[in-house]
This record gives sequence, C-alpha cells and structure tokens, in this order.
Amino acid sequence: MTRIAELVEQALDGLLPRIEGIEGRLAEAMRYATLGGGKRLRAFLVMESAAMFSVAETAAARVAASVEMLHAYSLVHDDLPAMDNDDLRRGKPSTHVAFDEATAILAGDALQTRAFEVLAEAATHSDPLARCELVAALGAASGAKGMAGGQMIDMVTENEVLSAPTVTRLQALKTGRLIQYSAEAGAILGKASQHQRHLLAAYGRDLGAAFQIADDLLDVEGSVADIGKTTGKDQAAGKATMVAVLGMDMARAHADMMARQAADHLQEFGERAANLRTLAAFVVARRS
Amino acid sequence: MTRIAELVEQALDGLLPRIEGIEGRLAEAMRYATLGGGKRLRAFLVMESAAMFSVAETAAARVAASVEMLHAYSLVHDDLPAMDNDDLRRGKPSTHVAFDEATAILAGDALQTRAFEVLAEAATHSDPLARCELVAALGAASGAKGMAGGQMIDMVTENEVLSAPTVTRLQALKTGRLIQYSAEAGAILGKASQHQRHLLAAYGRDLGAAFQIADDLLDVEGSVADIGKTTGKDQAAGKATMVAVLGMDMARAHADMMARQAADHLQEFGERAANLRTLAAFVVARRS
Repeated sequence: MTRIAELVEQALDGLLPRIEGIEGRLAEAMRYATLGGGKRLRAFLVMESAAMFSVAETAAARVAASVEMLHAYSLVHDDLPAMDNDDLRRGKPSTHVAFDEATAILAGDALQTRAFEVLAEAATHSDPLARCELVAALGAASGAKGMAGGQMIDMVTENEVLSAPTVTRLQALKTGRLIQYSAEAGAILGKASQHQRHLLAAYGRDLGAAFQIADDLLDVEGSVADIGKTTGKDQAAGKATMVAVLGMDMARAHADMMARQAADHLQEFGERAANLRTLAAFVVARRS
Repeated sequence: MTRIAELVEQALDGLLPRIEGIEGRLAEAMRYATLGGGKRLRAFLVMESAAMFSVAETAAARVAASVEMLHAYSLVHDDLPAMDNDDLRRGKPSTHVAFDEATAILAGDALQTRAFEVLAEAATHSDPLARCELVAALGAASGAKGMAGGQMIDMVTENEVLSAPTVTRLQALKTGRLIQYSAEAGAILGKASQHQRHLLAAYGRDLGAAFQIADDLLDVEGSVADIGKTTGKDQAAGKATMVAVLGMDMARAHADMMARQAADHLQEFGERAANLRTLAAFVVARRS
C-alpha cells in the first residue's frame, strides 16, 4: 500500500498544475488539498483492480490520481463553513483555513475539472471508448445521483433521526459510489467482461459500506479511548451513522459481514484478487 | 437564436436530474440555476458551428446543454458570498439566496459533473474519440489553466490597477476560453480538419474578447443612462475591465476591432459561416 501511495503521489505531482503566474495561488491550493495525505484507499482500489487485468501501471496511476483529485475536491468543499465547517483535515488546517474560502471553492472546482480531463486524455488508455467509460462512470458515481446527492441528503437530514435503510442509502451515495467506481475502474481499463466488471462493482459497493461503518466506529472509539477529548465528531454534529442507528456491537457485526460479502464477490478471480480480499479484512480490522 | 434557445432548453430539461427523493433539493437547485435564463451565447455557438459541418441537431444540443451547465455552475459559484457575493442573477435571486449556500455549492459541483458526464455518453457522438476530445477540451477551457484560473486572477487582483495585457489575459481565461471552446465544439463534433478547428477556435477567442468588452461597456452605460441607479457593478467592486483601463471610446473601438477580426477568421467557410459572422457584429452592437 505504501508503494502504491508513492506511485500515485508522483502521478498527482505530474498531473496537477504548477504554481506559476498571478493565478499560482489556485495551483498551490489544489496541491495542498491533494498531495501528501490520506490513506489513498481509492487509488489502491484502482491500482489493484487494474493489476488483476495486467493494465500498465502508468495508465492505472493516472486513473488513481484522477479519483484522488475527485475525492480531494469533495473534502475541500465538504469542509467549507457553509457545509460541515471543519477546520482540520488529515491533521492539517483545511484548505479554506490555510488559504481562504474563495480559493478553496475554486480549488475544489478545478480539482474536479482536472479529474475528468485526465481520464479523457490519450495517455490514460489507447482505446477512447475505455476513456469515455471512465468519464461517464466517474460522473455517475460523483454527481447528483451519487456522491453529491449523498452529501445533499446529509445536509438536509442534519439533526434528524434516520432509519437504517436511509442511512445505508445516504452512505452508499456519499462515500460508497466513489469507492465502487474505484474498484470498477480497473475492469474498465482492463476491458474486462461486463460480468467481471459487475463483480468488482459489487465488491466495491460492499467494501465501501464496511469501510464507512468502520470509520464511524473509529470516530466513537477514538473518543472513548482518550478520555478528556471531545466526544465523537459525528455525534456532536448530529450526523446519522450506522453506529448511531444500530449501536456499536451491531454496527461492528454488520461491517464484518459486509467485508466478508465484499471478498466473496471476488471468489472466481482466485489468487489474482488476493490483495483485494485482504483489503476487505483490513478495512474492518484497522484501528486508525 | 430563439429557436436554438428553445431547443437547448428542452435538451437541458431532459439531461438535468429530476426532483425526487430526499436529495430532490439538489436537482431543484440545479434546474433553478440552469433553466429559463441567459442569452445562451455558448449554446448558440455550439449549435451554429456544428451546423456548419452538418452535425445532427440532437447531438449538438447535448453539447450545447453541457456547456450551458458548465457555465451555470461557474455563475452559481461566482455569486457565492465568499466570491463575488451577488444576490441577483438573470433578474432572479442567486441560487444561494433562493436556496442556501451549501445547496448552491453542491448544485454547482453537480452541474459541472453532469456537463462532463453528458459529453462522455454514447448519444453525444458515435465516435468515442470525438467524445474524449470534447471532454478534454472542456476540461482545458474551464479548469485551472482556463476559466477557474481566470476567476482566481480576478479574486487575487481585486482593487488593484491592472495593465491592459493583464486584463486581457484575465478575461481571456475567465470568459474567453469557454466561448472559444463553444465555437470549437462544432468542429470536434463535425470531425473537421485541425485547420478548420483552429479557425473556429480563433473566431471564438476574438469573439469572446469582443463580447466581454461589450458587456463591460453595458455595465457602465446602463448606470449612466438610468440616473439614480447605483454606479456600475464592476467599478463598485473594483473590478479591472478594459473599460477601466482604456476608457470608453478606446474600449469600444477595441471591441469593434476584435469582432471584425473574429469574423475574418471564418472567411474561407463562405456562406456556411454567415450566422457566426452576423453574431460577431451583433455581440458589439447589442444594447442589453
């Protein structure tokens, strides 16, 4: 995972605009928001799913960089005062704190633009149809019927008590769809069959659900372990999570089940999918 | 122009998400920001340049709708309190006033996403390479080295006195690049030669410059004509415009020259480009 993170960091550095001209502040903020941070889960999924179909690493790294730009844009905008109003991200001041709100809005916008542009460029795949499929699939995963729609549900339902199905749908859209896309991207790059693509999408969908619950559990447990710290961020913000709806024990059991289910989708790939199956187990076992 | 505006309105209505589910507010804001307003200059350029190469109207209308979504996203974000803080747009409350800031940020985000997604979908062109070229060209026109970069220059230089070349570059990025793309899009759709594509790009670039100066002149003249109204918005905001740099008479002369130059790029197309040449003359002659 460390090697892939380094590879993707290099790709990002090459694909993000350079800091030059009067508008250099924009490139600076885009780099600040994207480089040197995060688990790179989405990039890892792209690289590993692409490796299953023997896709060239340089091509896969472009797609991995693209999805990390898209993810970074969503974090920059989610942190804005009008949204979740979060001053810290990955242990650093959020982009709108380190720069200013206008720059953060523009940096998020331009990161999204660059994510799509990179996918459409010839270096991403020799077959333009595969590039179009990557663009269309990323659009579907991140737009009004995907990630942005999930964030809208999150804003609209703040401080409301939600049912388990509603929380599941919220999180499937808000974080699940992009994780699903990341797993699917390797199949698109590898010109895999529709059946194989569906298997990877199903894996990504269930992995995303497991990942999100694990994240919510950490938010609660982190505060229990270190007494004296503020209570969990989600609870304070009145966020609907599966932990809030199901309680910790049932939420953990549900996460474990989703992780196993994710791995099961990959059975017919045999040893080729070993890393992705290991990831599913890791996602629910991690403690940070 | 009215017929094309109606055609594009229909295409937008079909391509924008429907208002449904808990997240319906997002689709509602996207529709509010995009439908029923504006001159549709960019859509007109796409449709007319595509018509020169006998592109099917249904395909061209998708590209025209896409560029209007991209344009609408930029207006929604530019109007935000942290940006230009504008409460009115096209005679209606801005999106963040009609809804709220969080919804406006998300609606702009999702409009950008949908613009790229529409271009990549099969219905836009039978050849995926043309679709990829549309995506990559729109990305280049609207990202950090295009529209977003121009908006960054605009924010960074607020209340500074700028030189004519700097103002020219600012406006070439902020509004020029997307207008240029709109004229080029027809050539991409029509699989025109690189030479023809460059001619249309040059036309769009010069037309964009003429259009922007004409817009800035209207901002000043509007306030001179209707005494008692506040002075021009640009001047009040300390915006650098060619009118501020050159004065009204020289700015008007420059706009006329750019409009003629735009039309001249299309000479070798003969009668096919009659509408686009007329548009160049119209853009500097309009009084509203």
